[in-house]
Amino acid sequence: MAYPAKKFINDPNDVVTEYIQGLVHTYPALQYLDGFPQVKVVLRADVSCTTYDKVSIISGGGSGHEPAQAGYVGEGMLTAAICGDIFASPPVDSILAGIRAVTGPMGCLLIVTNYTGDRLNFGLAAEQAKSEGYKVETVIVGDDCALPPPRGIAGRRGLAGTILVHKVAGAAAAAGLSLIDVAAEAKRASEMVGTMGVALSICTLPGQVTSDRLGPEKMELGLGIHGEPGAAVADLQPVDGVVSHVLMQILSPETNYVPITRGCRVVLMVNGLGGTPLMELMIVTGKAVPKLQLEHGLAVDRVYTGSFITSLDMAGFSISIMKADASILQRLDAATKAPYWPVTEDGNRPPAKIPVPVPLSQSAKSDKSQPVSLNKQGQVLQEAIEAAANAIINLKDSLNEWDSKVGDGDCGSTMYRGAKAVLEDIKNYPLNDAAETVGEIGSSIGRAMGGTSGIIYTIFCKAAYTQLKENSHSGVTPKQWAEALAASIAAVSKYGGASAGYRTLLDALIPALSVLQERLNSGDDPSIAFLLSSEAALAGAESTKNMQAQCKSLQEKVIEYRLRGGTRIAKNQFGFMSRKSTTEAIYLLWRLMKMCRGLKYGDFLF
Amino acid sequence: MAYPAKKFINDPNDVVTEYIQGLVHTYPALQYLDGFPQVKVVLRADVSCTTYDKVSIISGGGSGHEPAQAGYVGEGMLTAAICGDIFASPPVDSILAGIRAVTGPMGCLLIVTNYTGDRLNFGLAAEQAKSEGYKVETVIVGDDCALPPPRGIAGRRGLAGTILVHKVAGAAAAAGLSLIDVAAEAKRASEMVGTMGVALSICTLPGQVTSDRLGPEKMELGLGIHGEPGAAVADLQPVDGVVSHVLMQILSPETNYVPITRGCRVVLMVNGLGGTPLMELMIVTGKAVPKLQLEHGLAVDRVYTGSFITSLDMAGFSISIMKADASILQRLDAATKAPYWPVTEDGNRPPAKIPVPVPLSQSAKSDKSQPVSLNKQGQVLQEAIEAAANAIINLKDSLNEWDSKVGDGDCGSTMYRGAKAVLEDIKNYPLNDAAETVGEIGSSIGRAMGGTSGIIYTIFCKAAYTQLKENSHSGVTPKQWAEALAASIAAVSKYGGASAGYRTLLDALIPALSVLQERLNSGDDPSIAFLLSSEAALAGAESTKNMQAQCKSLQEKVIEYRLRGGTRIAKNQFGFMSRKSTTEAIYLLWRLMKMCRGLKYGDFLF
Repeated sequence: MAYPAKKFINDPNDVVTEYIQGLVHTYPALQYLDGFPQVKVVLRADVSCTTYDKVSIISGGGSGHEPAQAGYVGEGMLTAAICGDIFASPPVDSILAGIRAVTGPMGCLLIVTNYTGDRLNFGLAAEQAKSEGYKVETVIVGDDCALPPPRGIAGRRGLAGTILVHKVAGAAAAAGLSLIDVAAEAKRASEMVGTMGVALSICTLPGQVTSDRLGPEKMELGLGIHGEPGAAVADLQPVDGVVSHVLMQILSPETNYVPITRGCRVVLMVNGLGGTPLMELMIVTGKAVPKLQLEHGLAVDRVYTGSFITSLDMAGFSISIMKADASILQRLDAATKAPYWPVTEDGNRPPAKIPVPVPLSQSAKSDKSQPVSLNKQGQVLQEAIEAAANAIINLKDSLNEWDSKVGDGDCGSTMYRGAKAVLEDIKNYPLNDAAETVGEIGSSIGRAMGGTSGIIYTIFCKAAYTQLKENSHSGVTPKQWAEALAASIAAVSKYGGASAGYRTLLDALIPALSVLQERLNSGDDPSIAFLLSSEAALAGAESTKNMQAQCKSLQEKVIEYRLRGGTRIAKNQFGFMSRKSTTEAIYLLWRLMKMCRGLKYGDFLF
Repeated sequence: MAYPAKKFINDPNDVVTEYIQGLVHTYPALQYLDGFPQVKVVLRADVSCTTYDKVSIISGGGSGHEPAQAGYVGEGMLTAAICGDIFASPPVDSILAGIRAVTGPMGCLLIVTNYTGDRLNFGLAAEQAKSEGYKVETVIVGDDCALPPPRGIAGRRGLAGTILVHKVAGAAAAAGLSLIDVAAEAKRASEMVGTMGVALSICTLPGQVTSDRLGPEKMELGLGIHGEPGAAVADLQPVDGVVSHVLMQILSPETNYVPITRGCRVVLMVNGLGGTPLMELMIVTGKAVPKLQLEHGLAVDRVYTGSFITSLDMAGFSISIMKADASILQRLDAATKAPYWPVTEDGNRPPAKIPVPVPLSQSAKSDKSQPVSLNKQGQVLQEAIEAAANAIINLKDSLNEWDSKVGDGDCGSTMYRGAKAVLEDIKNYPLNDAAETVGEIGSSIGRAMGGTSGIIYTIFCKAAYTQLKENSHSGVTPKQWAEALAASIAAVSKYGGASAGYRTLLDALIPALSVLQERLNSGDDPSIAFLLSSEAALAGAESTKNMQAQCKSLQEKVIEYRLRGGTRIAKNQFGFMSRKSTTEAIYLLWRLMKMCRGLKYGDFLF
């Protein structure tokens, strides 16, 4: 059974008028004539035909090509756009209404895409307007390069090159030129540009059934902006080759459609046809520019990439190449308030890429290594680190076994990798500087552990390092170790998103910090304070046994289940929420505490 | 058999680096770090970390959301964007490289979307950068309003509201604020915005098979920007109702996600998810604005419509609503060179629609009617018009019969409608003014005939009118009639696209004009001149019998055939290329000529 194409619309007959209402809400500098549904004219809100002292630039045609043409209405580009129904030329009366609304004594230029309906309707409107006393000129744009030179009436179709003609004409008018001169510049621009399109799918009109004319591995070359068939259907291939083919067609010396030869300066426009993401358009641009430069010997002065004139939801792109000279570049670069003319900047093009900066630390601290002789703190630090690392190494199998009951059973192996790395690197730790040493432990862990755990423990160490570095210059006091623990907990909580009660390592660390600070503030012996702190950590870890799982409504559980079953990204959101981290944290802390019990005040280390 | 989704790409692993190359070609004000494929960092070409005297704003995350985030790099918005692979958080080293490349003494703010991977990687990079001596602050954005308030670690997802936070932060930094103040403004902005998405299709990763998770008549509500499942799947319905639902979810007083209540001022962002045409986004905007105003009692101060943060090729949109005050509006309105921040204009909003202008002719010439007494030219004109019209009426069946051999057999009926209209309207023609009368004939034909023929004949009359009006003030001389014919032929040729040899009415009219001008210039009696002219017209018409059809290669014929079989638009291109028009033209001319043979010089009429 065939279903209508899915679209975000209401009545298919209202799509154009509802589009215009949204456009005018979005851009208050635009207005429309109150003549729906027949008259669908978008115009500059700041132009009144009675006072306008510049040439008006008017374009239009069938709708379904948004943002063309209404999106190019604005100072420096179009003065008004006349919108037809989807893919249907606007009626003469609506074109006339547009001309009357914005044309002052300087006259107006109609820029018309080369389709018979548009030519005739705009033509009649032009003649009618002239008979009413308006000065009117018309320029017809036919930039298609896909088909061989036609000998009939139809001529070449008007495609994305039309937008460049709009810009040239709009800038010339804004510069105050006469109607004859503006028309001459627009006509010259229209003769300088060639376009060819490629598509992966055919557009579907609102309310109609989706076309499946192309097969699953096919693309169509040289088609127009209404889904009309193109020159050929071909097998889909990497876009690199497609771009080469399209450029050769446009620049073909046989058809001689555009007066561009080696050594010319050109402007490139890569245009999306409605259903093509920007990423793909940019990939086309990234391939087209060097090909134009190296294979065709052209200087590419400006590049415009975006969806400028579309074909409803068609997945496809077109490439336009315009011969450029100083005059055309001046018009293209001139300021405009038209909402959809791309932001550009002239001036010198800096290098596209610059070297990755060297880390400050690498250059400043390249002499990092264990000092020749360790001071007392350094000795204690060395012993503590080695004892903790060895304890973790010995616990590898037990940690794996416990983890296999709540997780994927690799907790011991992960911790083992971190501990091994620390033991390997310790010979280069500047052990007399406790802050730097904590930072280096973080680097060892970050390099070796991997995964979320690796990042969490590295953040823990780096946050402690920064806190210690800021405040300690010789030895580190017990209060400074406590402050470092506080900074580490804050960082892990902030970036990990957990806090107390989430059954993570924070449920051990937060009570430990709390008791440590209390005891130190009340003047207890630091050894006692740390002993009590370690007991608080153990109690905190044990408490997670009885914690309620995060309270969830049935709806939340359904959502979580669906998210877990979704992509790897969705899963990321839950990767950190297990008991595994708690297990890891409590054992690290517990080992450290056991190791520290024999130390006296002054030797105290976290 | 399942096929990979069709995309314009090369190797699926290279899409992000090739995207960046295209982006930098398009926008010379952007650069990237030379660290592909691991380090994918886009930065402002005009910022050097050694001299930059403002707070740097850095964002990033998985790719596939183009133009986010790299498209928002530019003065007044982001200083650098860190790109991960598709939907994968960037590695810590590349974030660090970005921080080092653009951060000066004022420090940097990291704006991070709320996904665990991004939080941890950006978090570790932040801590590492701090340990290297950089001033770093981090703001995490979670603006999703689709799911009920989560109690776990994940929190709310970061969606399109992030772009608004970028803008606020970028403008605050550009204004010279300190890191603490910039971070505070960004954090406040992040708390003011809520977002919810809807989709018709799920995105497909490069190289992967298209998902058909949704059925042909289904949509999904509340999904994220990676295709992860949403809150509910529902039947597709008119978008009006979908917009209502989304607005109610975002503004729900139950979840209380955004501090927006009746009477607030707000900013609206309608964001496309990659595969949604601008037309549909504007329709959403057109519905959302009045609903916010009338149903929710909010003042809508700014509207942004476009594809700001996408999900590859997903057909869908999201709505974001931000509470606005003078401070936030100032930041949103501040100038920026970021390529994809939309062109906007503050200031007063003029009326959205203005009246359709009244034609000059209606107001100026409302007293149009046949004069009380006809002068000699008026009498001749009346007789000639009536004779010609009656001749055509009498030929209706013959014309239809002849046309049925080469066309659709309605030529006689079409001409009959025009002639009848002329006879009905003649009582109001200002017959003493030949120019005005010719113009009025055009109006009668345009109103009654319809179709391409109607437009062609109306253009013919209007062009003659303008030419006559310009040069004749009392009676019209034979040379002026010839000039009027020349103007008519030029207009028909220009707008219709035909010239001599195309087997159209021009093959009769062009020789007629040529002989008429020759004879008048050589001083012949105008009656003789016109007689010879009419014979040239007949000969010209007869000559089309033996004319070659437009010479076509086999390839052209294939293309034409395919175009004819295509849409009604493609057909338009060929609608005018038939012998039908020739038949019409020659009979009109022939009847006029027969009628005129008895007239004397001075009474001469075309």
